[in-house]
This record gives sequence, structure tokens and C-alpha cells, in this order.
Amino acid sequence: MNENERGGPSRRALIGWGGAGLALGAAAAGGGVALSHDGPSPASAGSGGAVEFHGPHQAGIATPVQDRLHFAAFDVKTEDRAEFVQLLKDWTAAARLMTAGKPVGEGAYGGLAEAPPDDTGEALGLSPSRLTLTVGFGPSLFERFGLADRRPPALADLPKFPGDNLDKSRTGGDLCVQACADDPQVAVHAIRNLARVGFGKVAVRWSQLGFGKTSSTTPDAQTPRNLMGFKDGTRNIAGTETARLDKHVWVSASDGDAKSAWMTGGSYLVARRIRMNIETWDRASLQEQEDVFGRDKGEGAPVGKAKEHDAPFLKAMKPDAHVRLAHPDSNDGITILRRGYSFTDGTDGLGRLDAGLFFLAYQRDVREGFIPLQRRLSAHDALNEYIQHVGSAVFAVPPGVRDSHDWWGRALFSKEA
Amino acid sequence: MNENERGGPSRRALIGWGGAGLALGAAAAGGGVALSHDGPSPASAGSGGAVEFHGPHQAGIATPVQDRLHFAAFDVKTEDRAEFVQLLKDWTAAARLMTAGKPVGEGAYGGLAEAPPDDTGEALGLSPSRLTLTVGFGPSLFERFGLADRRPPALADLPKFPGDNLDKSRTGGDLCVQACADDPQVAVHAIRNLARVGFGKVAVRWSQLGFGKTSSTTPDAQTPRNLMGFKDGTRNIAGTETARLDKHVWVSASDGDAKSAWMTGGSYLVARRIRMNIETWDRASLQEQEDVFGRDKGEGAPVGKAKEHDAPFLKAMKPDAHVRLAHPDSNDGITILRRGYSFTDGTDGLGRLDAGLFFLAYQRDVREGFIPLQRRLSAHDALNEYIQHVGSAVFAVPPGVRDSHDWWGRALFSKEA
Ligand code: HEM
Ligand code: HEM
Repeated sequence: MNENERGGPSRRALIGWGGAGLALGAAAAGGGVALSHDGPSPASAGSGGAVEFHGPHQAGIATPVQDRLHFAAFDVKTEDRAEFVQLLKDWTAAARLMTAGKPVGEGAYGGLAEAPPDDTGEALGLSPSRLTLTVGFGPSLFERFGLADRRPPALADLPKFPGDNLDKSRTGGDLCVQACADDPQVAVHAIRNLARVGFGKVAVRWSQLGFGKTSSTTPDAQTPRNLMGFKDGTRNIAGTETARLDKHVWVSASDGDAKSAWMTGGSYLVARRIRMNIETWDRASLQEQEDVFGRDKGEGAPVGKAKEHDAPFLKAMKPDAHVRLAHPDSNDGITILRRGYSFTDGTDGLGRLDAGLFFLAYQRDVREGFIPLQRRLSAHDALNEYIQHVGSAVFAVPPGVRDSHDWWGRALFSKEA
Repeated sequence: MNENERGGPSRRALIGWGGAGLALGAAAAGGGVALSHDGPSPASAGSGGAVEFHGPHQAGIATPVQDRLHFAAFDVKTEDRAEFVQLLKDWTAAARLMTAGKPVGEGAYGGLAEAPPDDTGEALGLSPSRLTLTVGFGPSLFERFGLADRRPPALADLPKFPGDNLDKSRTGGDLCVQACADDPQVAVHAIRNLARVGFGKVAVRWSQLGFGKTSSTTPDAQTPRNLMGFKDGTRNIAGTETARLDKHVWVSASDGDAKSAWMTGGSYLVARRIRMNIETWDRASLQEQEDVFGRDKGEGAPVGKAKEHDAPFLKAMKPDAHVRLAHPDSNDGITILRRGYSFTDGTDGLGRLDAGLFFLAYQRDVREGFIPLQRRLSAHDALNEYIQHVGSAVFAVPPGVRDSHDWWGRALFSKEA
């Protein structure tokens, strides 16, 4: 044991330092605490800041999309309401620390030598990397803890869509946490430590790593490409478009019956694991690929237009083109906020990459967002020849944590709310 | 179809641009071709350069470790030697382009509209991200194509070690490609496009994504942390230590009998998928964790020393401490170059993270590197309580591609060599 590091009154200071150093722009290391990731990494290259955890809405929805994702769905194991509420408070406290770049509790090496450290340590010395942690409550949660009369009608169960081939072990969940960060180690660390804080009360049901964002929520940034090689996220709601967010994403007090009042400021999340049949796609001609989307592959311009951001002329596209079918003009104005990530989970045992899009969409009401849109797409989209929906979940994402006394889900669990 | 983009004499220029733009430091986009990844990303933040593909050794071994990994093992499907040699030439040509940040062949949208594009496109507009592609030949390859008398004795089969619990679907392979890059999308794109070039001749047997490097091959950089929260890679061979590389990593002409002459300048790679029992580890006390490694968790200093890079005093460590057992002084000087990555592949169906270390080690002779070291570790290491080896492979990594006429494996397949 190294007495310098372990003992003495400067320990707490060091712990704070370890994680928050870079966020504060500090470069000179005190006490030999690691400050930055090795070499040129996103963490040390300008994307290392902290995203504010508190606010009227949870971060991670309108926040400019980070590079990496770790998403986890949890099942509740406890039947004790008070214990579950305490977990939500503990999670909130841990999330507040981690999003600020600080380790959980006493840190990874700050506690008693005889006890397991509070934090698992692998994010020590990394910057906050714009970590956001966003919590959601699944329909099955409302069958517990006497919450039945609090389930918002807008948190509708998804019907079975044509072509769905859902794997139960990647579907559903009482709770979810979406961790987004520019450094995957920071996102993985966050989910792992929340799982650990929840040990015995909740258990991970399934989780998904996403390595490349497939959506843009910043108006001027370059649009990333999905694994089909197309720009994805061209027409999306930008985090700065307050009016569109209010109209299509945030639940408003006026939406509310008594069951959903607690959701004001929140949103509804649909997660779909969409497998791409990469090998078939890669053998399709360029013309066929461009017809499928109704956009060209290089620039991402709509058919007949020159530039990515030119307004699509839908009638120039094939009737079954993805963009034509998904566009608000074909759907009475339906608009969702997409925030998906590409995934590649090795091979599927048949020599094919298990790769695709982990689709995440936020909306004000699932009945007026994903459900009608996906009814149309699942029935008609030319893209269906190349994809399959293999996982699915839906969550009510409560409003933001207002301040240091507030906690995730307070309004749901408070008698008066 | 967009005539501006598809036709005309400037097409080839555009294709080159798409990928190589950032590498050249160009910021002004011509012709609407996407130039950089969305927002602050490793690609646009100083780690975007190209690593030289040609040289006496393959890149990706002594090269400073990049942030991300996609590793694939392939099985050979063709029985035609000429066809396989042609594949190696095609792969070399594709690797030469991709490591320079360029798409394969005519690119993702440069060919005929009636044909599938040569490149799948998802890396268009991303920088080279220090991509390296490193090829290796497994023992089973030498049972084909009349190569039996060319299998180097140093490419020894690994014995079954105590505690091994190998999953066949993650073990072995006739060939491997290690793709390392600072942007995972670039590494994934490279493996996918090589698999595509090889369609019908080779098929992916298994693949592994690594999201966080666990080794340092640069002397002054911060040492990254593994998923146990410890700095990993403190004592490793730096890419700049030519004498140690020559001694422990590169195969020399003097090693050679007739069977291994073609390997001069190459190296041998052992890959092990090592699952960590994260949940048990996280419940171990700080003292136990530090005892297991013989180093402290915060600073990474050896027992009784103050600083990470202080020379370890092995006798101060517990007899079964990992570092004590693995140190060259306990093993007649055995030294390997470690280049591993952390992985998290969702959950294992039992609510536990399927996470751990994808261990990669390069050495001059497997019989004098990994095998004796792992015999000792597998029998005595305190770490064994918390890990399990679940995948395994070994490869002969041929020397580098010398110039634009040379190709991967030429010396192996040439009659005279
Ligand atoms: C693997 C599956 C999918 C892929 C590869 C994909 C890809 C794309 C691409 C390339 C675009 C055009 C660029 C853009 O505006 O972002 C697009 C647009 C869009 N997609 Fe998808 N998408 C997929 C699934 C879905 C699903 C399941 C939905 C909703 C149910 C959806 C809804 C939309 C919407 C609303 C637009 C914008 C249409 C517009 O306003 O022009 N997509 N998608
Ligand atoms: C999950 C499995 C493993 C973990 C978490 C792990 C972790 C570590 C850590 C934290 C260190 C100390 C820092 C450093 O010098 O890098 C270390 C050192 C080392 N490890 Fe491992 N290791 C693992 C497996 C292996 C295996 C399988 C081998 C070889 C068969 C190996 C060989 C070494 C060597 C040679 C050293 C340097 C010893 C010295 O020179 O002081 N490790 N490892």
C-alpha cells in the first residue's frame, strides 16, 4: 500500500481532481494523479467538457449527439417501494458525479482498504467526455409499486409490426439508462457503476454498445454516415430548435390527464435494434441503393436536387423510398427526434456481421410518433428488404432533475404530483 | 440520380478527396463532398493522420496504440492457390488505399450506377484515423496450398492451459486481420471491406470489437486503464525501443531454418479473449485488488514504491501477484509486446456484462514468449479468480509490404523465398 496516495487529508481533493481535472482545463498534475487518456483521444481533444446534469429536461435528448453509446435496460428485483425510491436517489447522486467527470462516492481508491472501492476506476483520469445519463421507465414498471394509475396513455405498448422478428432477450425492460459520451470507456463505466449501485434491486436485462452516431442534432455539423454508407440524420430536429422541440418532443402540461401530469418536461423513447443485412446490401447496385432512400450516396441530396439540405421533392422519389415514406408531408406532419447509433457485435455464427442501427427516437406521444410512422414503413418501405427489427423497447423519460435536491422520477413517486 | 456528382472528369478527383481530405489538412470542401465527421470527434481532432503502410515490418505492432480495434479471424473457402494469392494481392491493394484514408477501388459512388459500389461508403469523409491493417496466418493455413513445409516451428500450437474454457466459435482461424484506428467506424469499415473483397474465397470466422486500449507503446503518454480500473501497459516495449523490438518482437534472419526464412521481419501474435468476472471483482476489497496485481490502484506504483514507473521490487509483492509472476525477472527474461483492448459485448444472458480484455501479444517465438509465460500465470496467478480465457488464436504475422509492387505474404508464396 502506498501511504502517500491512500492516507492523509488531501485524499478527497485528489479524488475530485482525478476525474474533473480536464474539465476544469487543468494541465499540471498534482500528486501523480492521472489526468488524461493516452495520446490523441477524443477525451483530450476538445470534446472533453461536462454537460450540465440539471435542468427542466434530461440531458441526452436535445444535447448535441456524442460519438458513443452504452444503453442498458434493467429489470426491477425489489418489491419494496421505499428501497426502489432510494435506488433512484442513489442513481441520481451517482449520475450527478459521473456526468461532472467525478467518480462515484469515495472514488476508486479513496475508501477503506478493507472495503470494495465505491467506483470501479476505469474512467479515472478521463475527462467527462460530454457524458449524459438519461433514465426512462418502461410499461412494466407501472405494474409495480402501485403505479398503475400513473401510466401515461402516451406510453403505449408497441404493436407487432409486419416483419418484426424480436428477440426476447433484447426486448423490454422496467427501466433504461442511455449513456452517451465521446469516449466509450466513459459511457461503459457509467452504466457499469449504476448497475453496481443497483445490485440486488435491479439487474441488467440487456445492453447495447453503439460506436458511431447516425444522427445529427446540430444544424451546421457534418452529417455522419450509417453502415449502409448513407448520410443519416440530415432532416432531424436540432437541439437548438426550441419551438420544434416543444411541439414534437417535450411533453407539455396541456397534454396531461391526471396519469401523465408527472411527465411534463419529459419525453417518450422508442428503442429498436435494427439488424442490417450488410452482405445483401453490399451486393445491391448503386442505383438500387439510392432508390431505396430517395437520396444520392455521395452528397446525400434528395432525388433531383443538388445539395444535402435542399428540400426533398417527394414525388420525384420512388413510391416506396424510405425518405418519401418517412417524411412529415406523407404522415400528417409526424416528426420525431432520431438519436441512433451504429452497432457491430461480432458475427452471427453464420459468417455474417451482426451489425446495424440501434434506432433511438424521442417524441411527445408514442401513439402520434413512432407507431403510425412505423406502421407505414413496415408495410411499404423498400429498405425492408435489407433490414430486420430484432429488439424493441419503449420508455417514459421523465423531466430533468431540477437541482441538487431533486432526483430521477420524484414527480412519479410523490404522492402529491 | 445527380448528374453533377456522378458524371464528368472530376469524379476520380472527388473520390480521392472524400477520404483523404482531412489527412491533407484541407478544410475547404469542393463539390459538396463530406470532409469531416460530425462535431468534435477523434477524426477531426489531431489524431486523423495516416500511418505509412509500407516498410520492413507491418504497421500495427510497434505503431503507437490507436484507441479502437476491430479484429477478425477468417477461414479460407477456396482450394485454388492462385485464387488465394490473388486475394492477398487484392487485400494488399485495398489496405494500401484504406490506410491512406481512401476508399476501395472506384469508391462508394464513383462506379457504374448499375453495379454495386466498390466501397461500402461509411468511412467517406472520415480521416484515416491512423488506421493500420495487420495480417496474420494461422497454423491451419499451412495445411493448405502445399504450405506444410513452410510452417515455422515458432508458430507453435498453444497447449490447453489450466482454467481455459475456450469457445470454439471464438477460437482459431486460417487468417486474421487486426484493424486499429482512432475512430471505430474506420476500423469496422476496413474489416468489412476486406471481407467483401474476399467474398467466396474467405469468410469471417469470428470478430471482436475493442473499445479501449489497455496498453501503452509510447513512453511518455498516460497509461490507459483496463476494466478492472488499473493502469495497464506500464511496463511494455515502446515502439521507439528498436533494440528491444529486435530482441523480443521481430523475427531475425538468424532465427531461421528453411521453414521460417520467409518470416524475417515478421512477428508472432497470440490473441486471447479473456472474460473478466466484473461483478466478483467489483465486490473485492481495494486491498485484495491491489494485492492481485502487486501495484496500487490510483497511481499504478509497484508495492512499496511511489510512482508508476519506479522499478518493481518483486519480493515485496505477494507470491501470486500478477506482476510478480509476469515480470521478466521471474521468467528468464521473457518479454512480450502487449497490445490489447477492453471489450464489452452486451450481457451474457445471466444479467452479467460480457466484458473483459481482448489480449494481443507480439513476440519473436511463441515457444519462448506466451507459452511459458501463460503456463506460469495459468497455474499460479491470483488474477485467475477473476478471469477466464474464452477464446484463443495464434498467427504468423509476415514482414511488411515493402513497396507498391509487394503484397502480403509474397515471401511465403514465392517459390524461391
Ligand atoms: C436501419 C434502419 C434505418 C436506416 C438505415 C435509416 C436511414 C435513413 C436515412 C439515410 C435517411 C435520410 C437522411 C435523413 O434525413 O436523416 C432517413 C430519414 C428518415 N428516417 Fe430513417 N432509417 C432507418 C429506420 C427508420 C425508422 C425505423 C424510422 C421511424 C419509424 C425512420 C424515420 C426516418 C425519418 C422520420 C426520416 C426523415 C425523413 C425526412 O424528413 O425527410 N427511419 N433514414
Ligand atoms: C484479463 C487479464 C489481464 C489483466 C487484467 C492484466 C493486467 C495487467 C496489469 C494491470 C499489469 C501491470 C501494469 C503493466 O506493467 O502493464 C500487467 C502486467 C503484465 N502482464 Fe498482465 N494482465 C492480464 C493478462 C495477462 C496475460 C495473459 C499475460 C501473458 C501471458 C500478461 C502479461 C503481463 C506482463 C508481461 C506484464 C508486465 C510485467 C512487468 O514487466 O512488470 N498479462 N498486467
